[in-house]
Amino acid sequence: MQSLSRRLLRQGLSSASSLSSKPIASAFLPRSYSIHADHATPRLQDMDASRLGVTRTLDPKPLKAPEDLIFGQSFSDHMLVVEWTAVDGWLPPRITPYQNLSLDPATCVFHYAFCAFEGMKAYKDASGNVRLFRPERNMARLNKSAARIALPTFDGAALTQMIARLCHIDDRFIPEYRGYSLYIRPTIIGTQNTLGVGPPGSALLYVIASPVGPYYPTGFKAISLEATDYAVRAWPGGVGDKKLGANYAPCIVPQQQAASRGFHQNLWLFGEEEYITEVGTMNLFVAIKGKDGVDELVTAPLDGTILEGVTRDSVLELARERLAPKGWKISERKMTMHELAEASDENRLLEVFGAGTAAVVSPIRNISWKGRLVSCGLEDHSEAGPLTQQIKDWIEDIQTGVTESPWR
Amino acid sequence: MQSLSRRLLRQGLSSASSLSSKPIASAFLPRSYSIHADHATPRLQDMDASRLGVTRTLDPKPLKAPEDLIFGQSFSDHMLVVEWTAVDGWLPPRITPYQNLSLDPATCVFHYAFCAFEGMKAYKDASGNVRLFRPERNMARLNKSAARIALPTFDGAALTQMIARLCHIDDRFIPEYRGYSLYIRPTIIGTQNTLGVGPPGSALLYVIASPVGPYYPTGFKAISLEATDYAVRAWPGGVGDKKLGANYAPCIVPQQQAASRGFHQNLWLFGEEEYITEVGTMNLFVAIKGKDGVDELVTAPLDGTILEGVTRDSVLELARERLAPKGWKISERKMTMHELAEASDENRLLEVFGAGTAAVVSPIRNISWKGRLVSCGLEDHSEAGPLTQQIKDWIEDIQTGVTESPWR
Repeated sequence: MQSLSRRLLRQGLSSASSLSSKPIASAFLPRSYSIHADHATPRLQDMDASRLGVTRTLDPKPLKAPEDLIFGQSFSDHMLVVEWTAVDGWLPPRITPYQNLSLDPATCVFHYAFCAFEGMKAYKDASGNVRLFRPERNMARLNKSAARIALPTFDGAALTQMIARLCHIDDRFIPEYRGYSLYIRPTIIGTQNTLGVGPPGSALLYVIASPVGPYYPTGFKAISLEATDYAVRAWPGGVGDKKLGANYAPCIVPQQQAASRGFHQNLWLFGEEEYITEVGTMNLFVAIKGKDGVDELVTAPLDGTILEGVTRDSVLELARERLAPKGWKISERKMTMHELAEASDENRLLEVFGAGTAAVVSPIRNISWKGRLVSCGLEDHSEAGPLTQQIKDWIEDIQTGVTESPWR
Repeated sequence: MQSLSRRLLRQGLSSASSLSSKPIASAFLPRSYSIHADHATPRLQDMDASRLGVTRTLDPKPLKAPEDLIFGQSFSDHMLVVEWTAVDGWLPPRITPYQNLSLDPATCVFHYAFCAFEGMKAYKDASGNVRLFRPERNMARLNKSAARIALPTFDGAALTQMIARLCHIDDRFIPEYRGYSLYIRPTIIGTQNTLGVGPPGSALLYVIASPVGPYYPTGFKAISLEATDYAVRAWPGGVGDKKLGANYAPCIVPQQQAASRGFHQNLWLFGEEEYITEVGTMNLFVAIKGKDGVDELVTAPLDGTILEGVTRDSVLELARERLAPKGWKISERKMTMHELAEASDENRLLEVFGAGTAAVVSPIRNISWKGRLVSCGLEDHSEAGPLTQQIKDWIEDIQTGVTESPWR
């Protein structure tokens, strides 16, 4: 078995060569349900960064002008690829020219959504060094996502090291302007090519990178939300806290419906209580002045229905470090749409913003709910409140190395 | 735009030629959010069976011995492929040699689970004619699944006609023995190759076919279930009633955990009431004698959390036609695990079976629930109750043409 898979690997990845038109052929092995049943089976190997092979492209892409970069539409010259089989574990990793994947139409990712991903960014600091922001968080989350859908886990430090290598090789794609970065997309898919519904006997982890500009090139633009009560994104005992492909496709139609009524995103409510959960693909933060006069920054707790956002966590940590000493209460608690609307009505709603890797923070102007438009505290001429602006600056200063931090 | 996509189509599908090692290159067009905004845009075309092109393989596969067929592990010589773009609609369909798909690693099916599928079977009757079982049901369901994740819908009759053509071309793969059939897997995936989360601007619908033998080659084998209360498959307002890939990957770990404790499948309960919903990948039927002495066949109602199984519907229709006149009550209603266990304790639980395309019906011996093993009415020496056997015979007689029916 080991020699078979090695042979397939050689066929597959060596055919990758330097021509980006040639596809990577993945190794498809028969499913093995009980990988330790056979004593002759070699011990499964973990991901091994020391075995990383690099094949550089012979056909480098022209760089786009920074102002022409659109999120996730163009990609760097190379990709990182690591195959896994239930028999051998993680096979030697490769950096290859960016190229198509060649997959059997029976491959389980096409049928049963065996896919999970991460979003992270690499920034260039003032000295031209490439910095990753809190990569260990993304690695831990990808491992949790993979395990939840019976895909293999891996050594996160090894993958981070190889992602850093990929960023180094493709660092010419990162424009040296503030707000520009390389968006990095680690992805893991099941590649078993049989239709039985079961744990995949093979998988492919790959990392692609897309140069991106600032989310708000001309400064913040506050967005409007539509509260969604007719569809549910996640539920207790489900998988809404994992970054699985399965959580994304079902969200598009409610998003389209919100857009058809003129709103930028939809806000997911949960349950009869109409708890506020997430906005589009971001976590949500609400700053209110309590009835007791105390300022409070609130976000939904990690009860299994909320994505465990890295930016969410960063906002909470910074707020606890820098806002709490000034008298702010920092809360992970459930908040109903009713409580938010009441605070708005009583002029106690200070600011509302989304938090995610793409935009860091996104100020919110108002929320359509039950036929009314709930104002989120922004004055008409303003696109972001002072707290939202402050938090964005804090995080970007860390990401770009202006502020020293263990998060890079 | 039209000529561009036609060019891509030509490049892609004509490169398919007759060599199964050459991949299909899909046409990737930029996303168009507002497909009718541009008056110059040609009217979108529906799927057109009259434009079906056929390229036959030059390398026919050897047939497997019927007894060596395993569900979904080997495939017929050809596949049906239809591309869609937001600009042009459905492009001319092709039957090509079975071959790999070549997709950009940024393709949205790998990241956001833009995938839905169907399972259907083609049978050979005594005269050697190939018959499809209720294909309009599968077409309607695939259209509903696709629409729910912003993938294009299509003319179901046109696709059925082309599937029939595929079955005819590959009919040598259907062994002429009772219980054998060609399992047909229509699949639709989003193929847009950019990372923004939005409606795919391109898609690929394809159909592959796998010869399969009888699910129970040596007669029924009753299975044991473990009731799952720590994970939830579906939720009101979610997508559990659609045949989306997103509903499958998250089910594997609970299934593995049930298997690790010696059970064949898991039974999904819902809510504090522990309503019985589905078993593994099948709908569930429970036959009880009511406290009033009336025999009742119960299955969960279509409340949005239950897959709308074609076999489920067939069982219900046949039961209403053939059991109700004999005094049976046929119910689509909620039943708790407690009600089932109480009926078992009082010797009123007659039979329990799963219903799905793969096995038609699967008799159930017992269910592990809260530390006890609830017996489902089968005697120790028996692998299926008389009702389960009767329903399987009724359906298979229709599928194989022994009984005339409008369902073929």
